[in-house]
Amino acid sequence: MRTLPLDRVYQFIEPGPVVLLTTRYRDRANVMAMSWHMMVDFEPPQLACIVSDANESFVPLRKTRECVIAIPPAGLARTVVDIGNCSGRDVDKFARFGLDTKPARRVAAPLLPACIANLECRVIETRLVNAFCLFVLEVLQAWVEPRLRGEKTLHHQGYGRFVLDGDVVRVPSRKP
Amino acid sequence: MRTLPLDRVYQFIEPGPVVLLTTRYRDRANVMAMSWHMMVDFEPPQLACIVSDANESFVPLRKTRECVIAIPPAGLARTVVDIGNCSGRDVDKFARFGLDTKPARRVAAPLLPACIANLECRVIETRLVNAFCLFVLEVLQAWVEPRLRGEKTLHHQGYGRFVLDGDVVRVPSRKP
Repeated sequence: MRTLPLDRVYQFIEPGPVVLLTTRYRDRANVMAMSWHMMVDFEPPQLACIVSDANESFVPLRKTRECVIAIPPAGLARTVVDIGNCSGRDVDKFARFGLDTKPARRVAAPLLPACIANLECRVIETRLVNAFCLFVLEVLQAWVEPRLRGEKTLHHQGYGRFVLDGDVVRVPSRKP
Repeated sequence: MRTLPLDRVYQFIEPGPVVLLTTRYRDRANVMAMSWHMMVDFEPPQLACIVSDANESFVPLRKTRECVIAIPPAGLARTVVDIGNCSGRDVDKFARFGLDTKPARRVAAPLLPACIANLECRVIETRLVNAFCLFVLEVLQAWVEPRLRGEKTLHHQGYGRFVLDGDVVRVPSRKP
C-alpha cells in the first residue's frame, strides 16, 4: 500500500461507499460494516460516523479512541454482508471470513490490505456519543492500494442491496 | 409527489447521493449542493450534515432551524454544479437555473419537484455547529416523486466528477 495524501481522503469518503471499521481493544481486534459516515473537513481530514452502542465495536472505539476505516472493492460484497450479519461477541470475523490484516502505523486497529483505501483515525469529539452514537474522527494516516485503483465501490440501500459505481459524469466545477 | 414512509428515508440517504439543501429566511429562499451528510437514526429518521459557515445557507439554517433536503436525479448534474459554484448572496439560484419550487407541508423552506425525493427537516442538535458546522436534523415529512423512481443518483468525487449509480448487487442480508 502507498501513502494517500491527506488532502485527497475526501474523494474516497464523499461519494458514500460502504466501509469497514476495525478496532483493537484489550488485544482483541474486530471489524464492522458501516454506511453512516460523512466528511467533516478537508485537511486535516475529519469524518463523522455513527457506531451504535448495540455494536460490539462501540466500546472499543470509545475506550481506545482509535479505529481504521477501510473502503472495500465491490468484489468484497459478500464479505461485507457477512461481517455485518454477525457479531465480534461470537466470532473472530477475520479468521471466519479469511480477512488478512496488517499493522497500522499510527493506531492499534489493523489495516485491511484487501481494501482500496485504509484510513487510520483518532476520535477527536465525543459530545454527541451519548445522545446519537456520533463520533468525529481525524484521519492521521491514509493508505491506498495501487492494485485496486479504479475498482468499483458499494453503496448500500438496505438489506444487502448495493448499487455499484457506474458511469462517470464530469461537469466543469471550481469546487473540490 | 407522494408521501414517503419515514422508515424508508434511510434507503435514499445511506448510499451517499449528492443532495440539494433549501432554506427560507426572512422571506428569501436559497439552495446549496451538499455531499457531506449521513444517516443518524432510522425512525424517526435523523440525519447529520455539514453546512460550512462560509455558505450563505449557514445563517438561515441556524436561525430558522429548518430545511429541505432533496435528492436530484443524474440528469440534474449540471444544475447541481451550477448551484454549487455560485452564492445566494449574489443571485436568486431558483430563477437563474429555472428550478421550480413548491411549498412544503411542515417547514418554510421550499420543495424541489424536479428531485427524486424531498425531506422536510428540523434541526434537533446544534452542539457541534460552532466547532464543526455539524447539524443534526430530524425528517418530519418525506416525499417521493413516482415519475422519477429508479432514476440514477450522483456521487461526487470532487471538482464536478460524479459517479452515477451502476449495476445492483444483492447479497442476502438480515440488516436494514
